Amino acid sequence: MATLLSARSSIRRLGYPLYRMPFANNGRRAASGYVKYNYEDPLNMESLLTEEEIAIRDTAREYCQENLAPRVLEGWRTEKFDHDILPEMGKLGLLGPTIQGYGCAGASNVAYGLIAREIECVDSGYRSTASVQSSLVMHPINEFGTEAQKERYIPRLAKGEIVGCFGLTEPNHGSDPAGMETTAEETDGGFVLNGSKTWISNAPVADIFVIWARCKWDGKVRGFLLEKGLKGLEAPAIKNKVALRASLTGSIFMDSVRVGHDALLPHGQGLSAPFSCLNSARYGISWGVMGALEDCIQKTLAYALERKQFKRPLASFQLVQKKLVDAQTEVALGLQASLQVGRLKDASKLAPEMISMVKRNNCGKALQHSRVVLDILGGNAASDEYHVGRHVANLQVVNTYEGTYDIHGLILGKAITGIQAFAN
Amino acid sequence: MATLLSARSSIRRLGYPLYRMPFANNGRRAASGYVKYNYEDPLNMESLLTEEEIAIRDTAREYCQENLAPRVLEGWRTEKFDHDILPEMGKLGLLGPTIQGYGCAGASNVAYGLIAREIECVDSGYRSTASVQSSLVMHPINEFGTEAQKERYIPRLAKGEIVGCFGLTEPNHGSDPAGMETTAEETDGGFVLNGSKTWISNAPVADIFVIWARCKWDGKVRGFLLEKGLKGLEAPAIKNKVALRASLTGSIFMDSVRVGHDALLPHGQGLSAPFSCLNSARYGISWGVMGALEDCIQKTLAYALERKQFKRPLASFQLVQKKLVDAQTEVALGLQASLQVGRLKDASKLAPEMISMVKRNNCGKALQHSRVVLDILGGNAASDEYHVGRHVANLQVVNTYEGTYDIHGLILGKAITGIQAFAN
Amino acid sequence: MATLLSARSSIRRLGYPLYRMPFANNGRRAASGYVKYNYEDPLNMESLLTEEEIAIRDTAREYCQENLAPRVLEGWRTEKFDHDILPEMGKLGLLGPTIQGYGCAGASNVAYGLIAREIECVDSGYRSTASVQSSLVMHPINEFGTEAQKERYIPRLAKGEIVGCFGLTEPNHGSDPAGMETTAEETDGGFVLNGSKTWISNAPVADIFVIWARCKWDGKVRGFLLEKGLKGLEAPAIKNKVALRASLTGSIFMDSVRVGHDALLPHGQGLSAPFSCLNSARYGISWGVMGALEDCIQKTLAYALERKQFKRPLASFQLVQKKLVDAQTEVALGLQASLQVGRLKDASKLAPEMISMVKRNNCGKALQHSRVVLDILGGNAASDEYHVGRHVANLQVVNTYEGTYDIHGLILGKAITGIQAFAN
Amino acid sequence: MATLLSARSSIRRLGYPLYRMPFANNGRRAASGYVKYNYEDPLNMESLLTEEEIAIRDTAREYCQENLAPRVLEGWRTEKFDHDILPEMGKLGLLGPTIQGYGCAGASNVAYGLIAREIECVDSGYRSTASVQSSLVMHPINEFGTEAQKERYIPRLAKGEIVGCFGLTEPNHGSDPAGMETTAEETDGGFVLNGSKTWISNAPVADIFVIWARCKWDGKVRGFLLEKGLKGLEAPAIKNKVALRASLTGSIFMDSVRVGHDALLPHGQGLSAPFSCLNSARYGISWGVMGALEDCIQKTLAYALERKQFKRPLASFQLVQKKLVDAQTEVALGLQASLQVGRLKDASKLAPEMISMVKRNNCGKALQHSRVVLDILGGNAASDEYHVGRHVANLQVVNTYEGTYDIHGLILGKAITGIQAFAN
Repeated sequence: MATLLSARSSIRRLGYPLYRMPFANNGRRAASGYVKYNYEDPLNMESLLTEEEIAIRDTAREYCQENLAPRVLEGWRTEKFDHDILPEMGKLGLLGPTIQGYGCAGASNVAYGLIAREIECVDSGYRSTASVQSSLVMHPINEFGTEAQKERYIPRLAKGEIVGCFGLTEPNHGSDPAGMETTAEETDGGFVLNGSKTWISNAPVADIFVIWARCKWDGKVRGFLLEKGLKGLEAPAIKNKVALRASLTGSIFMDSVRVGHDALLPHGQGLSAPFSCLNSARYGISWGVMGALEDCIQKTLAYALERKQFKRPLASFQLVQKKLVDAQTEVALGLQASLQVGRLKDASKLAPEMISMVKRNNCGKALQHSRVVLDILGGNAASDEYHVGRHVANLQVVNTYEGTYDIHGLILGKAITGIQAFAN
Repeated sequence: MATLLSARSSIRRLGYPLYRMPFANNGRRAASGYVKYNYEDPLNMESLLTEEEIAIRDTAREYCQENLAPRVLEGWRTEKFDHDILPEMGKLGLLGPTIQGYGCAGASNVAYGLIAREIECVDSGYRSTASVQSSLVMHPINEFGTEAQKERYIPRLAKGEIVGCFGLTEPNHGSDPAGMETTAEETDGGFVLNGSKTWISNAPVADIFVIWARCKWDGKVRGFLLEKGLKGLEAPAIKNKVALRASLTGSIFMDSVRVGHDALLPHGQGLSAPFSCLNSARYGISWGVMGALEDCIQKTLAYALERKQFKRPLASFQLVQKKLVDAQTEVALGLQASLQVGRLKDASKLAPEMISMVKRNNCGKALQHSRVVLDILGGNAASDEYHVGRHVANLQVVNTYEGTYDIHGLILGKAITGIQAFAN
Repeated sequence: MATLLSARSSIRRLGYPLYRMPFANNGRRAASGYVKYNYEDPLNMESLLTEEEIAIRDTAREYCQENLAPRVLEGWRTEKFDHDILPEMGKLGLLGPTIQGYGCAGASNVAYGLIAREIECVDSGYRSTASVQSSLVMHPINEFGTEAQKERYIPRLAKGEIVGCFGLTEPNHGSDPAGMETTAEETDGGFVLNGSKTWISNAPVADIFVIWARCKWDGKVRGFLLEKGLKGLEAPAIKNKVALRASLTGSIFMDSVRVGHDALLPHGQGLSAPFSCLNSARYGISWGVMGALEDCIQKTLAYALERKQFKRPLASFQLVQKKLVDAQTEVALGLQASLQVGRLKDASKLAPEMISMVKRNNCGKALQHSRVVLDILGGNAASDEYHVGRHVANLQVVNTYEGTYDIHGLILGKAITGIQAFAN
Repeated sequence: MATLLSARSSIRRLGYPLYRMPFANNGRRAASGYVKYNYEDPLNMESLLTEEEIAIRDTAREYCQENLAPRVLEGWRTEKFDHDILPEMGKLGLLGPTIQGYGCAGASNVAYGLIAREIECVDSGYRSTASVQSSLVMHPINEFGTEAQKERYIPRLAKGEIVGCFGLTEPNHGSDPAGMETTAEETDGGFVLNGSKTWISNAPVADIFVIWARCKWDGKVRGFLLEKGLKGLEAPAIKNKVALRASLTGSIFMDSVRVGHDALLPHGQGLSAPFSCLNSARYGISWGVMGALEDCIQKTLAYALERKQFKRPLASFQLVQKKLVDAQTEVALGLQASLQVGRLKDASKLAPEMISMVKRNNCGKALQHSRVVLDILGGNAASDEYHVGRHVANLQVVNTYEGTYDIHGLILGKAITGIQAFAN
């Protein structure tokens, strides 16, 4: 299997089942003067990708279908973290792929989105694990860290040798991080941190914690890098989740955790620093959830074609076709929108509200339509072996985390009206 | 705790938390010339119930809240059947409550609905277990069985001493039982059954199987009573469900299972017999799902009142209030509709399409609105300790089983247009 | 044609087309042990009505179908008020039907609802005209007026000899009447009123104006009866409406209008007085809109049965059946809910929030589903001769007036959370 | 005012009100490292347009806002066709803009879409008139006509000197043109046409009729050009429409209409020829309806900012912000999708199903969200002076014509499943 770095010069098609090979007829003109329609890529997004992006996507797809898909049921059922996965992803260059240097691929933001889509096509939990590593750990170190911090952490994070997590959300401040209670105080030789965080992806297995705390000396929020094993630092897992069971989630408790001055991320202060990370992650989510919905469509379409009732395939019923078509349309539109946001991000023409729009829309639509197509499975919807119920459960959480559907709506509402209504 | 039988003469209020005591101000006229509104019973359904029905409901409520609620997380997490539950329900008269005699309560169909609502307020899986016992096992024996069969089975089923299941659905014929492939053939001294059934609630723990088979001698469908342990009869569990995990589901395989002539339910033939059972169960489901949605509302309302964001309780936000109010409205309307159907059932004025209407509407609305209010929990939605995610997963299955949402829609479509469109 | 008063002792069935005769099989037991389903009255609401109520409904139905339906297109197209209609309704006892004495029928609130349903089955504008006369003019005079006021106005209003209107809403205070700017000041021999009202049904043709004004001497809101022709009183029509074109709407301007002391409605003060009127009207609306939706269903069903595409009637397509069935279900549920509210109103067990619930739900559902079934008409939807487009336009306004969908939602939100969020 | 032809070399910004000037900050980087968000163009579609396309759009916008907007209420109220409009559009090059030569602009398909959006921002009726002229009359002559036909008609159609219409739909075959009953028979010196068409835009004022008929000699469908005044040809108007009142619609009756051999469009046969026209028109519609929804957003946003209730602007309420944001998001996504389809059309990479997707999605979303934002106007929604009610009524028809929402859904359903379900 090619890594991202090598894939950049070797564009190829992989030997996947037909339904994962959407592009065979791409651009070939049909007899009628039209080209043949490819329902897997209804608006021919392929034509808007670079060869490198296509190669990266195909590398990610091959890995995810061959290596992640077979493991997901076990992960889901047992809520156990598979320590091999991040190293595998790292080997292919899938972690922190937009970063230049430090062993990273330096690919486009669109490539990053395509990777997220392929991973979440298997499971939102796996994508969460990777998103945190890339956007919430490697990104802030790269953006706000010192050269020493970058060299110390990014290469190992890129290889998946160490796992990172991102501690922003607090028990009492889910949608409103401005209320942050965790504090950092300067002391001899460094800082002392106190506080707690919750619903932190990867925390129970994290080697490196990016912790956001309010600095007592000036009231500003800054990021700190905490390594596992520090005295007073604990990260117990939250078990018995009804979703994202293939990834780990935990709380973080900091009881007078002492770190040196070199733990501070010096180049970011205020909430704009963690928000920059969240924006990067949310952008990736907007791609990822489309992948999850695509998998729901593929699996229910295959079922509808094979399953007969009243002597005809389910797929021949109007009510079933409508479900599939509505979902497929939203995928096509959502991907176009995320692609455009990715291109603007690459061109430094991004506004954060654009990310609120695609994160909110794509999550909301993925959730809505995955639920609709789930019904196609009839009684088999209840079995995890049909996978769609798992996606549905996952997507509800993804629609809520990193800014709920309503919060992003109000961010956009403020942008359109000029009036903040969060606390209305 | 009173049993149903004794509760009929002792109306009383139970010591529940306020939010489960909807009726305190019932009918008390407010100063303004209006009575005080009770959001728990918005249209004062209480005023339409008999004292007996209120007593039965309160008995069921007390049992469910005190005895089932504390066990449900364990059942959900482990997919283990709790063998104590049916005997407990039996002791209170909650099983087969509409049957006259044989140790049953002989209560109204409305009372039966109220019981289903209270059980499903805890979990749809528990309600499924009870529905199967009452509507799909006790009911067909009572309707289509011989006096000997009734005396042999109903009292023990009513006490919960034995567990029953209902084998109609086949792997290839979910929505279309007319395609049934299981056969019964007459032989010396009885019958031989061959075939398989799937998605059968209670099957793995069933002592008595009501099996529907096509009789080779005349092509008609009839019911047979099979006892556990017969040679060739197996009922393995379907594990790793994403919903209804607190109840057991299994397949049934019959490989030349031999039974005597006394195994035949003689008084029902054709699909109208199992459909009669399904109509009874579906009617109960229409009540049950309203209970599940009520629990979702109560739990998210409590959370919204307590949880603060932006320095105000979530419950003060317009977007949150709308979610709660929409759900509450559907509960109020759905219960009124089921009540009317129950009254018509008691008066022998029932048409089966009425049941399709309330089963379809109430399941669909419960599923839709439970999903909406789930979002109120934010990140905590992912934890099974908040319960609503469990209801949401359950309701998707309940919306699908015993006639999917679409199938009931097409039954009603045929009724309104005169044209069958199942295979359209 | 019988009047309501005489109809009370002569229950009869009218010679209507089959689709308006839903009750022929009512209660007749079908061979299967079930009764035959009547899709026109899916939950057999008929069985819950008194003979008197059925007779009143049938009288109203006969009048509306024979006398209003043929006139509605002309009214819609020309925006002209037909001065014969209120006298015709009055002759049959359809105006102020719940009032005891003064020439009124003294019927139940359910009967009032049934009348509203039959009128709005033809047009929401006609029902608006009647609602205003009954609930917003006759009701406040009856509740808050002197005996002299009652005797002077109610009999003539009941006969439709004079037309009334209700001036509450002001240009700047649509959803928030507490901001009322119209004032009444006491002077020699009476009061002087100043202010303006807008979107007032019937105003341009009103003989008697019920005007709500803030009284300068104590700041309280009270009602005043103004007769047409008073100096300084004007009521110009608002033309070019896109909805409710068969009824008149106007503004009211009061420039130092002088009235005697006998113009004051003495027995109501504060906003609870006009709210009492609105509650009565809203209750009627909750029935009326169901009638409008029923007409949409009947007309599109008839079209779907007759219209063929792809060699089959539209009614045979799953996607068409779903539209009809969803609408029909909401009618059945909405009517049950309004019936219950009417019964509680008759029994003095009403809470105003109940009315918010049925007004909001029934208007919202009528609007939503009338829009869905409109699409069944295909291109013919654009022609007013198919009527459904007219209902759709009307229902949007009815969903908004007398408390918008959102305002009633927030009223219910306050009731469920205890927190007012109107200004959130 | 510049014509399209001249505009191609003079890019400029027009002096419009701020809300129509979305692009002022385009690409300017905000202090934070992000650019400023422009809610009028949330995903910066501007950056994907050529200078020529921007110039064409601005020309169209200026004309529509300055010249069409002031006339639309009069057209709507009176159902009168304004004969000046097509010549005005022609002068600016807005008719048949994608055609090369014959006095046409030869612009891109994206430019054509941008024009449709600007016209429908004023009224769907005006856009219908222009769509018919460009896509359904000029296009088939250009594609399927002889050089003589092109020279005879296209220049005058481009100038708006003559009006064209497109006769495909028949009274009995709305969604299924394969059932066409209109016939053409060859006779001495030409053809005789018999049959009727209905719901034909522009027909009552058409100078040139493109009529599709089944040719008796080989059973194939072909197009014929009929000029006004032919014996046996009549085109009466359909009046009293509830939508698209600013454009004319009529029937066409052909009673042995005789034409010469030169009336035949020789280069197209079979339904693929008229479908090619419809695809062009539908593509334009997908842009147009986004313009209508944008106007609904702008008008309700302006209202919400200005209108106060409970002492705060409506725009500050969460429930109002949600309505606006949902609509805006769909505009942003729908435009991106149509843009991509236009680019593929220009590159000859179009599949007709792509057009079904954007026609269906954009019409459905425009209709849905225009209805939602309409409610923001409260009571004023009923007045045509607030314009949004007019858009809502129009969009219902636009969602239905040229392939209903459901028919396009089933076209896509066939594409995804391989199974035709039109007659299911």
